[in-house]
Amino acid sequence: MSSKNSTDVLINGKIYTLSGYESTEYLQKVATYINSKTDEFMKNDWYRKLSLEDQKTLLEINIADDYFKAKKQADAIDGEAQVKDQRIYDIKHELIASQIDVEALKKEIATLQNELNESKMTIVRLETELSDLSASKRRRTTT
Amino acid sequence: MSSKNSTDVLINGKIYTLSGYESTEYLQKVATYINSKTDEFMKNDWYRKLSLEDQKTLLEINIADDYFKAKKQADAIDGEAQVKDQRIYDIKHELIASQIDVEALKKEIATLQNELNESKMTIVRLETELSDLSASKRRRTTT
Repeated sequence: MSSKNSTDVLINGKIYTLSGYESTEYLQKVATYINSKTDEFMKNDWYRKLSLEDQKTLLEINIADDYFKAKKQADAIDGEAQVKDQRIYDIKHELIASQIDVEALKKEIATLQNELNESKMTIVRLETELSDLSASKRRRTTT
Repeated sequence: MSSKNSTDVLINGKIYTLSGYESTEYLQKVATYINSKTDEFMKNDWYRKLSLEDQKTLLEINIADDYFKAKKQADAIDGEAQVKDQRIYDIKHELIASQIDVEALKKEIATLQNELNESKMTIVRLETELSDLSASKRRRTTT
């Protein structure tokens, strides 16, 4: 730890002055965590009977176990995150394909509507022609 | 650690028999990690001059720091994963909405095509009627 802040923490009844870039709150949290673990171990007769070195080594193993478990969890979540990224990529592509479909179908509808309008105009024209022709035929018949 | 496997690990030149549910490989990895950290610290004069208790406490602080950093990383990735879940949920909804649009547009196309076919049949009928009427009119004119 390079020096920046300087914080006194109490670990197992001894004051340690820690200096580093970490906040005072963070260093106090670390100290509290170590003290809690020690207190937990100290509840056991077999632990209290060990030498200080062995007590400390077992504590190190226990903290290292927490570290590897947290690291494993981080790796697992990271793996899931990559699966999620792929899922987002896939659905986005599906969405874009669907949106392209929508655009193509809308164009098709516009073309069909034009064609339909023209057909309707043709029908009106033909009906008019037919009606005119029928009328002129009726006039010829009556004259 | 409740007993299941029993493994001997060497930490700082002392053999510790660890028993637990963890694999031998895992416990050896933990021991290697602690030894590497110790070796790293031991390169420093100031560390070698400390009492064993203080050396071990500083090592504990260092391992606990690794633990909290890994934990923080896990929490951060977990937060990102939740954002990704929400993103997947949102895009899925957008995709479903787009797919519903596609279905509705396809139905509209089918309706328009039917209408257009009917119009075309009407045009053919009207053209036939018109052609018949014109022919009969021509016949009347010539007779």
